Amino acid sequence: MLSKAKVKFIKSLQIKKYRKQEQCFIVQGAKSVQELLQSGFEVVTVVGTEEFLASGRFPQSVECIAASPRELEGLGEYQSNDSVLAIARMRPSKPMTIGGNEFALVLDDIRDPGNLGTIIRTADWFGISRIIASEETADFYNAKVISSTMGSFARVEVFYTDLQQYLAQVTHRVYGAFLDGHDVHGTDFGNGGLIVIGNESRGISPEVEKYVTDRITIPRYGQAESLNAAIATAVICDNVRRR
Amino acid sequence: MLSKAKVKFIKSLQIKKYRKQEQCFIVQGAKSVQELLQSGFEVVTVVGTEEFLASGRFPQSVECIAASPRELEGLGEYQSNDSVLAIARMRPSKPMTIGGNEFALVLDDIRDPGNLGTIIRTADWFGISRIIASEETADFYNAKVISSTMGSFARVEVFYTDLQQYLAQVTHRVYGAFLDGHDVHGTDFGNGGLIVIGNESRGISPEVEKYVTDRITIPRYGQAESLNAAIATAVICDNVRRR
Repeated sequence: MLSKAKVKFIKSLQIKKYRKQEQCFIVQGAKSVQELLQSGFEVVTVVGTEEFLASGRFPQSVECIAASPRELEGLGEYQSNDSVLAIARMRPSKPMTIGGNEFALVLDDIRDPGNLGTIIRTADWFGISRIIASEETADFYNAKVISSTMGSFARVEVFYTDLQQYLAQVTHRVYGAFLDGHDVHGTDFGNGGLIVIGNESRGISPEVEKYVTDRITIPRYGQAESLNAAIATAVICDNVRRR
Repeated sequence: MLSKAKVKFIKSLQIKKYRKQEQCFIVQGAKSVQELLQSGFEVVTVVGTEEFLASGRFPQSVECIAASPRELEGLGEYQSNDSVLAIARMRPSKPMTIGGNEFALVLDDIRDPGNLGTIIRTADWFGISRIIASEETADFYNAKVISSTMGSFARVEVFYTDLQQYLAQVTHRVYGAFLDGHDVHGTDFGNGGLIVIGNESRGISPEVEKYVTDRITIPRYGQAESLNAAIATAVICDNVRRR
């Protein structure tokens, strides 16, 4: 049975401060919980309908709690979720070393959780599993981020750090999109490098721009002033991977 | 001054039924309102701060109402907007004939307003100004759609219709993304055609799939199961435009 204390605990995890304190986060919905169970994350609790709990086998260490669809909907943060919700333990954030033959994303203040989730999902599609993010970037463990990744949160790691300090010490090529850059259709991205994605409103900040070695541009054929950050990520990644 | 009746009228336009009845919609924020004023849309009312109203010249036919930032925030639907809001008249939805040397999008039940807005913005970037949408697709005049277009609502037209009937009578090539299609990196899109974008959860419906002449695929290099609908639109459009 779902105790009042458990409900209170789950709801507290909607807030970053409590997630940090408890080192736990929430995953909502059947598909995302299934991805979670197959991932390296330690799952603490699964709250699901009798039907969901009967449909799978869970490690002994996982606390399983049955709940009605209505109780589950009440627990969810921003969208209807009436089959399952899980609590998992955060991973320690480890400094990331990107190899010379690897592509990684660098996020310069992506503030919208939906954008961050979509960027993680897109990176996973294009075989990019590591992201370096500024400290102002939305929280990876935010429920909307986790949900927008559509399961890719289990395969893509995000490391939060001071981008200036980080970029000052790398030797990779650093690609950044600007209006006056080299056409991505004709850019040779080689075998590895860092791809900087700028903030939704102001693009790449001057502090990060200093470290960009290769200015690139997504060619425009119409009149929109800019592209959404996740959209730009996808177009660049598709051009990076193309041979 | 902002009367109670005006506040009530503006708030009623958050609901599709009243938008349809009044044939009016709302545009929020300075950038979008500026795009609106330069577009072919008939602007009925501008509610702005003294500062905003002093910053521009408005056609005589436009009713200008001064309001405080706080009043403006109260009028907005889902995000903070403290400088200006406008009411404009909808355009009549006209049947769309797509020329043989033109690309257009066909949206098969894009239900999320943010996705629709981002697709419109992306289409505008890639020089696609006409979209045919199923009747289940989110409403073009929804405030979240208008806002997510970042001004592109003024340049891209959306025609809502029964897609089966529409597609049954066209002679264009009809491109649709499936897992077993032809790699977009090697597809010759020619000079024109219709690009079908499927629903967020279930992709292209069987009823619409019947009319697809060219099955295409965005190559995957990682493990995500799918791409967001707006992301897929962008990658396909970039490949369509590339020579």
